Amino acid sequence: MTNRRLGRGVAIVGAGMSKFGAFPDKATRDLFVEAFREMRQSVDKGFEPKDIEAIFIGNYSSDLFEGQGHTAPLMASWVGLTPRPTTRIEDACASSGVALRQGILAIASGLYDVVLVGGIEKMSSLPTERVTDALATAGDALYEIPAGFTFPGFYAAMATAYMHAYGATPEALMCVGIKNHENGALNDKAQLGQRIADIMAARQASAAKKGLPIPTWKDEMEFLRDDRANPMIAWPLRLFDCSPVSDGAAALLLVSEDIARSFSDNPLYIIGSGQASDDALHERSELTTIAAARLASRQAYEMAGVQPSDIKVAEVHDCFTIAEVIASEDLGFFAPGQGFRAAEQGLTTRAGPRPINTSGGLKAKGHPVGASGAAQVVEVWKQMRGAAGARQLPGDLNLGLTHNVGGTGQTCVVHIFERK
Amino acid sequence: MTNRRLGRGVAIVGAGMSKFGAFPDKATRDLFVEAFREMRQSVDKGFEPKDIEAIFIGNYSSDLFEGQGHTAPLMASWVGLTPRPTTRIEDACASSGVALRQGILAIASGLYDVVLVGGIEKMSSLPTERVTDALATAGDALYEIPAGFTFPGFYAAMATAYMHAYGATPEALMCVGIKNHENGALNDKAQLGQRIADIMAARQASAAKKGLPIPTWKDEMEFLRDDRANPMIAWPLRLFDCSPVSDGAAALLLVSEDIARSFSDNPLYIIGSGQASDDALHERSELTTIAAARLASRQAYEMAGVQPSDIKVAEVHDCFTIAEVIASEDLGFFAPGQGFRAAEQGLTTRAGPRPINTSGGLKAKGHPVGASGAAQVVEVWKQMRGAAGARQLPGDLNLGLTHNVGGTGQTCVVHIFERK
Repeated sequence: MTNRRLGRGVAIVGAGMSKFGAFPDKATRDLFVEAFREMRQSVDKGFEPKDIEAIFIGNYSSDLFEGQGHTAPLMASWVGLTPRPTTRIEDACASSGVALRQGILAIASGLYDVVLVGGIEKMSSLPTERVTDALATAGDALYEIPAGFTFPGFYAAMATAYMHAYGATPEALMCVGIKNHENGALNDKAQLGQRIADIMAARQASAAKKGLPIPTWKDEMEFLRDDRANPMIAWPLRLFDCSPVSDGAAALLLVSEDIARSFSDNPLYIIGSGQASDDALHERSELTTIAAARLASRQAYEMAGVQPSDIKVAEVHDCFTIAEVIASEDLGFFAPGQGFRAAEQGLTTRAGPRPINTSGGLKAKGHPVGASGAAQVVEVWKQMRGAAGARQLPGDLNLGLTHNVGGTGQTCVVHIFERK
Repeated sequence: MTNRRLGRGVAIVGAGMSKFGAFPDKATRDLFVEAFREMRQSVDKGFEPKDIEAIFIGNYSSDLFEGQGHTAPLMASWVGLTPRPTTRIEDACASSGVALRQGILAIASGLYDVVLVGGIEKMSSLPTERVTDALATAGDALYEIPAGFTFPGFYAAMATAYMHAYGATPEALMCVGIKNHENGALNDKAQLGQRIADIMAARQASAAKKGLPIPTWKDEMEFLRDDRANPMIAWPLRLFDCSPVSDGAAALLLVSEDIARSFSDNPLYIIGSGQASDDALHERSELTTIAAARLASRQAYEMAGVQPSDIKVAEVHDCFTIAEVIASEDLGFFAPGQGFRAAEQGLTTRAGPRPINTSGGLKAKGHPVGASGAAQVVEVWKQMRGAAGARQLPGDLNLGLTHNVGGTGQTCVVHIFERK
């Protein structure tokens, strides 16, 4: 894998997303229109949709979730972009991170100057157990699913191996969930927009109102250790260690670097992109790290010419709390085995030296799987442009990063953004 | 849509495919390994798989057909290419034609020199009615499927409109099926490798052997008009107007133009690429043509600087016989309303002035939908290099074309190849 620079530079000049949540009355196309509209409004100097020359849509499985294949031209049609070329990209939960990479390559090739990248998924139409089955197909259907694996099971295996190797505790993982809910409570697009402390207090108040025994949880950690409040899903992962079933969409407008200023007063330049694959989990020798994430991030850092310590704002793939801990090590933010300590010590909170997932992450913002990679970029866009409202990080956020994982890490894609 | 030339040229230096058919004992990964091996052997000067820098896999819906998502890294893993970046491309039955285009853009971007493009589909695991349902999801699941449409129905609607507009007959469409079976009988990779005349004779012989009344069909046309021999699927399309349910895979090796001669004595240079989208069928004003095919082919011709009349060998998307007739007009080979006459007059046979689908086409070679676009390129590769055996066209085949359609034409992608 060579890490040559691209034929020409690419910038993001617009970014938007739908509300994330469960929307029984909306189809994927409705959510995509919502995201497209916010993206359009975010382009400082405006643009005409007809200037978009190609569309790349990340989507995991509208096939299984909605009985709709061939989604890319439908999305283009619903935002008025027929007959532009449209392509769906699928790499499980990394689908729209990889779609972003295709958009970059397409502009770098010289064929296009203006490209739309989208991410979409509508999962809530199915009952939860069928969602779990649909997600499981991102594992190996011949070797892993017949052995009983589901995604909570895969990540529980990683968590168990990690705890064994480094002495981490379930409570360290819970710190990730508490932190991401704190952030999500400040994000009006988040599906789970409540602090865990508030959820706890509401349950106590509800019990009191109903004349039931009032649970005696004193703090979030006690609430999260309680089997009734926070049921075990796959040991050691409990409900609040898992991202929700979500519907949502995101949209990004990419242009070649040389014309970025004619769209935006404050473009984000994409200075690093890395992507790598891995064998299925059952074939790997190590479960405490995701090799594709290490490799993709090294490619991105090398292309960008920056170090992990240079990154000011990062959205990482926290489909489960353990995933954020491992990601924080794979990305080089913390040494192997130190990610859980960083979470415990609050180093990754908004007030800490290494903020992660200010949006609330997949955990609290929601995880419409094919949309998550593009939605990560929406948060970095807002933070780096000073438009993140109540959750805005202080300081000069000149470098941002997104880390998007497919499956158990068979795909990982990392991007680095610069505000000049 | 601008038609600038790419940042740098791209050539095909290897091409291979699996046998197409119904293989109950093979998974998609097995078929892909088979295609990869033939591709590898076709590279004149050899190469090391580790030189492959990225993989793009076209696949329509392993999700629905095999219960397997996230197929791209699995395919890479099974041909030993972990941890190279792997991406699945989905645009219904145009998936691997569009994957080829992504491979081209990826090399043109400057990031990669050597890229593997694959196409895969395994459809035969499901009963035929569930295959029909799975394919129907390439239409519009909110507006078309609830109205009762299936893919034979969509193309029957196009056939009916075409017959009404131009006075074509079902017999003209049957000429396409007869011709493609003639070609497929000379292709050892074809799923339906029998001439219709031979199928007819075999049925007569079988009846005689069993002491049953011997059908009196005198020629293929009489056989194809018989409701028992050739049942109606969706008027006016009968069984022999439809491509089969297939399993198969194809693989292409792409490199940047400047290094092509170090892989191959006789590379195919990709000099034209076009892609366009369209609204779903129910929103269109005309059914006798596919607008995306007209537009994609015009882009490709313009990029290549050639005319339709320059093309020596063409593989077009004949999922149904009517599709080949319409394609032959959309590509500019014949005027609107003249494609059916060309089929009747034998102009598109191997002996005619405008040979189409020498491989047998989707109709006889088989149509594992995500593999079809890449497999079209395998045929053009073989023909243009003089390696098509018994079905080899005569003359100097310096220019070839592939035309790959997704759904009812919501996607179309066209490529033009030159042998220098």
